[in-house]
Amino acid sequence: MKIGILTIGNELMNGRIADANSSFIAREMNAQGWTIEAMMSVGDDEEAIKTRLHYLLAFTDAVICTGGLGPTVDDITTAAVARAFGLPLVMDEDVLAHLREIFIRYNLRWTENNAKQALFPEGAQVIPNPVGTAAGFALPVKDKLVFVIPGVPSETVRMVPGGVIGLLRRYFPQATEYAAKQTVKTFGLSEAAVDERLADFDFSALGVNVGFYPVFPENHVVLIAHAERREEAQKNLQRATDAVISRLGDCIFSQGEESLEEIIAGMLTDRKLTLAVAESCTGGLIASRLTDVPGSSVFFERGVVTYSNKAKIDLLGVPADIIEQHGAVSEQTARAMAEGVRKMAKTDIGISSTGIAGPSGGTKEKPVGTVYIALCDGSLTVCRHYAFRWDRRRNKLISSEAALMMLKNHLEDKK
Amino acid sequence: MKIGILTIGNELMNGRIADANSSFIAREMNAQGWTIEAMMSVGDDEEAIKTRLHYLLAFTDAVICTGGLGPTVDDITTAAVARAFGLPLVMDEDVLAHLREIFIRYNLRWTENNAKQALFPEGAQVIPNPVGTAAGFALPVKDKLVFVIPGVPSETVRMVPGGVIGLLRRYFPQATEYAAKQTVKTFGLSEAAVDERLADFDFSALGVNVGFYPVFPENHVVLIAHAERREEAQKNLQRATDAVISRLGDCIFSQGEESLEEIIAGMLTDRKLTLAVAESCTGGLIASRLTDVPGSSVFFERGVVTYSNKAKIDLLGVPADIIEQHGAVSEQTARAMAEGVRKMAKTDIGISSTGIAGPSGGTKEKPVGTVYIALCDGSLTVCRHYAFRWDRRRNKLISSEAALMMLKNHLEDKK
Repeated sequence: MKIGILTIGNELMNGRIADANSSFIAREMNAQGWTIEAMMSVGDDEEAIKTRLHYLLAFTDAVICTGGLGPTVDDITTAAVARAFGLPLVMDEDVLAHLREIFIRYNLRWTENNAKQALFPEGAQVIPNPVGTAAGFALPVKDKLVFVIPGVPSETVRMVPGGVIGLLRRYFPQATEYAAKQTVKTFGLSEAAVDERLADFDFSALGVNVGFYPVFPENHVVLIAHAERREEAQKNLQRATDAVISRLGDCIFSQGEESLEEIIAGMLTDRKLTLAVAESCTGGLIASRLTDVPGSSVFFERGVVTYSNKAKIDLLGVPADIIEQHGAVSEQTARAMAEGVRKMAKTDIGISSTGIAGPSGGTKEKPVGTVYIALCDGSLTVCRHYAFRWDRRRNKLISSEAALMMLKNHLEDKK
Repeated sequence: MKIGILTIGNELMNGRIADANSSFIAREMNAQGWTIEAMMSVGDDEEAIKTRLHYLLAFTDAVICTGGLGPTVDDITTAAVARAFGLPLVMDEDVLAHLREIFIRYNLRWTENNAKQALFPEGAQVIPNPVGTAAGFALPVKDKLVFVIPGVPSETVRMVPGGVIGLLRRYFPQATEYAAKQTVKTFGLSEAAVDERLADFDFSALGVNVGFYPVFPENHVVLIAHAERREEAQKNLQRATDAVISRLGDCIFSQGEESLEEIIAGMLTDRKLTLAVAESCTGGLIASRLTDVPGSSVFFERGVVTYSNKAKIDLLGVPADIIEQHGAVSEQTARAMAEGVRKMAKTDIGISSTGIAGPSGGTKEKPVGTVYIALCDGSLTVCRHYAFRWDRRRNKLISSEAALMMLKNHLEDKK
């Protein structure tokens, strides 16, 4: 089934508010196996609403409109939709009674403009609003369906699953297609490289749609399988997922929506392991990402951001001569930082980062983006050199990702 | 001038990503005195792109398209736009050379699909991309203009002011209305409170448009003055800005685009002051925000993330009995942390955070969101208690903001 979305409001057109409803509605429709043909936004302008609505209906089975259902003069969506199809507005007595009830219950003063929210185009089916005063409606137009629901996100999220989807299934019983979805998150491959590695597999033959979503510094692959029957969609999705896993190998860190830090937090907590972090170029970002996870205090003992050499010596016991000989940005210093923070914190694992985030501070031997990440578990210390090429913020972010990835791989090898 | 926006990408149509570019572009166009007639999103589908583009051009002077310029097979925007107007694609040798250069400089492996990013419709003017590999272009179509720029927000925000607006002014010299813009960033007032404080001033009488943009935990006020002549717009903008400043007072931390951490970095650097940070509930976020600023190593000596009591005692010299008597989340501990980190790091200033970020760990006396922020400059120690009411991530963010705000106010008082 083909769906169009029309979000209505001047606040969208002047950019004061970014449209969040469209992506929510799209996810809900996709989960039903239905596709979004177009999303559109217009201001509170009757002519614009009428012409855009007719345009969207021309190539969709249903259009879902949001916004402009308030009691004030600038809310004109219901009237515009009625006129778009030459229908009169009729008062719904039940809705009117319900509105007056609400006003009495919360002793608000009733003003006549509120009655406007009980007017609907002739032939419309009312969709109750469980969390607000503005009811929505579904209007059959020939063999198609026009929905109008409020634009307040907290109301939209209730009325789409609650009212819209059920009515769509009832009006379009033939729309029985199902969709199954799988996300695979990777780090360490460019978008082009991911694309190339998957190029030999024919996903479309399985009715599987492949999407690439770079979320710096990660690349996410999303597989969506469409089929007549749910079992079939799931079977095809599994085969496509296996193909992706076999081709992207250990660049995959998550088969689902979990973040890298959530996965690591789970592994450390399950195994009752503790962690300490010594950061230079990442400036506290590794600690901040790990402590974003609820319950991280169970495994996260401490972090130190040792920007100065003095701090590296005081807090980590890095020998001054190592810094003198090899520099603060060196494999030797990274190793000493990881070993030092682990020893001082008496944790099972210590990880460290040292590097040049930029934009200044680079040299010919050690250009901006030079980063060393080290990990120590008491029995061994590993260190890896990286040459990143981004701006300061992204160098920090990709360095923190590299450190977390090293930690995850270490924990997996230990399994 | 009438503008249309067409955002392109399957990630928009399946709802995986909410369109942020449209609202940004709308604000930029509004700031020029131009209006958005419609915003539309379509998937990576050639037919859809062609028909939607023609539809939007029918009632606008220019259409700005974003997305689908990557090297992968699903990125088809350039080809679709060329075919929409029956134009061949031509290789831009300069862009190609520039692309190869980038690959050599960062020794990436060149794959042929990358050359795709040097193809443009015949007659298009290339718009350079200062932060990525995908260049954009402007294509004159009869008396109208079609723009295509990347969909990556960090690239869009550079290429709209940098490339698109200048070309629009050159192609449409008659669109001479001028607009002057002023951003005022605040922290500590709700959007409703900001709105209320400004309610008594008649901005429209000055031809000034006021926009409120909550950027958690900040509220930004954007003033845009429209006038025939630039001088007039600037004069009116100044009067409106003065009115805002006098009404929002010390909740304002920035009169421009500068971030709170950038402003603090400038103050500390100018005065040759050094800083050390001791974090508990913010988990490294204060350190990470400050070290996002280039050159922060000049003033940032160290940060410690003392999640365990042991770390608070070892690294900060917090007396064990203070923690026992008053708890790790208390004014006494916050003060001892700020004083301790300053003493250990031998810096001019020490700041600290301790609190309960949630979702668990709250008690009746100290519910989730209880936070203490302290600052010590050697002569005095100040501490403030906060009761936040957000989820874990937002409690961390608003706590780091409160700490930075305390630091900024302290530095201003010292002036």
